[in-house]
Amino acid sequence: MKIVFLGAGNVAEAMAVACQERGFLIEQVYSRTMESAASLAKKVAAEAIVDLSCLSRDADVYLCALKDAVLERVLVAVPDFGTGLWLHTSGSMPMSVFEPYTKRHGVFYPLQTFSKGCPYDFSTIPLCVEASDASTMTCLKEWAARWTKVVVEMDSSTRRYLHLAAVFACNFPNYLYGVAADLLQQKGLPFDLLLPLIDETARKVHEKSPHEAQTGPAVRMDKNIIDKHLDLLAARPDMAQLYVLLSQGIYKRHSGVE
Amino acid sequence: MKIVFLGAGNVAEAMAVACQERGFLIEQVYSRTMESAASLAKKVAAEAIVDLSCLSRDADVYLCALKDAVLERVLVAVPDFGTGLWLHTSGSMPMSVFEPYTKRHGVFYPLQTFSKGCPYDFSTIPLCVEASDASTMTCLKEWAARWTKVVVEMDSSTRRYLHLAAVFACNFPNYLYGVAADLLQQKGLPFDLLLPLIDETARKVHEKSPHEAQTGPAVRMDKNIIDKHLDLLAARPDMAQLYVLLSQGIYKRHSGVE
Repeated sequence: MKIVFLGAGNVAEAMAVACQERGFLIEQVYSRTMESAASLAKKVAAEAIVDLSCLSRDADVYLCALKDAVLERVLVAVPDFGTGLWLHTSGSMPMSVFEPYTKRHGVFYPLQTFSKGCPYDFSTIPLCVEASDASTMTCLKEWAARWTKVVVEMDSSTRRYLHLAAVFACNFPNYLYGVAADLLQQKGLPFDLLLPLIDETARKVHEKSPHEAQTGPAVRMDKNIIDKHLDLLAARPDMAQLYVLLSQGIYKRHSGVE
Repeated sequence: MKIVFLGAGNVAEAMAVACQERGFLIEQVYSRTMESAASLAKKVAAEAIVDLSCLSRDADVYLCALKDAVLERVLVAVPDFGTGLWLHTSGSMPMSVFEPYTKRHGVFYPLQTFSKGCPYDFSTIPLCVEASDASTMTCLKEWAARWTKVVVEMDSSTRRYLHLAAVFACNFPNYLYGVAADLLQQKGLPFDLLLPLIDETARKVHEKSPHEAQTGPAVRMDKNIIDKHLDLLAARPDMAQLYVLLSQGIYKRHSGVE
């Protein structure tokens, strides 16, 4: 099993490390700059390339872990797609982006947030797969099963919703952790104080639906507390606007006004 | 150590169970309705009362785990405060709410989200304490140390900020998990798919600051993805407004525009 990685960012790094752990050989890492290609290639004992005309022709899998806008620019510049399976890892790009270039292709979308230098247990990360044809799907599902216990067949249009849901479940909550951190910093309090609360909030939705798990002043629109909070945010109209919008959302969802 | 609980909601239940685990005797549970008083009293082998004139006079601690608006109504109706230590568990009520009624008083605010029927390991939950005088503070800190490893002395004005930060770190992220759940349900996808992502988002801020941990299309204001997401939200202007506001917040925080 020989793999070529196109891309050397957070997603590529996490997936390349997972490949190594599974004994797949990474032949090459392509990136636009030699610095980033070499940095990842070194970690996984692969060749670093920056010139697409140097792409290996005989890899089994070409895994494109590139930003959406970059993916299209790279594909158009590939001189020879060979006979390998071309995959991308994007939540929002349709599979059809490969159609003009190569017959055997698909999507291999890991539903996770990846940061450099973090360890990942891929065996529990959902992998959403899509393939150009039935025999490719069979291959892809077999391969995906070597990565994780959670393989989900999903078409491009459904995957876009999942990607949007992931933004609401990950990127936005993380931003709100940051707002909380900024508020504590103003008072000289350490962010660590909030960690048991953040952990429990995430843990609880393993057992209850988010709707059942909801607590806080907005559930019953407790004006007494909400007005005090808005007073504290008087100097931060952006945070106050967010506070009001989220509180209204919680209240509507719980009072059944929606 | 004899304790009287005033209140029988989520916070009271979690704290009463923690008292039992620590071998403190719960003498009475007061609530406005016999149903809720009896329900908690039965769990912790206490007497249920609904009439404040039946309050025990010789308890060591009176722990008020009541909604803010209810706390003031209850205090004004207590006929005799005795010599015990009166505490409330609220993030947003000042300690001074007790001043007209009793000399020895304080605050015992656990920074956690409590739901009925969930087990809690109190030993890792921060307890923010405040006391009417130095000798009461000494007692209170000793007692708090039997609950948790994390005892933090905090005045009422600082505690209000912590409570506000907790709303941003817990209530609002949980609401966004719910928005994600609703989006998945539209496409017949199970919410469980998001759990590894939610867990990792919470785990990551143990290691990195939320700012460093931020991922997603808004960090670099990726118009390509953001416009696709807003298309998917065309039928939900409330969600689209939230999406735009949160994305702008992330972008501003990361581009240093603020």
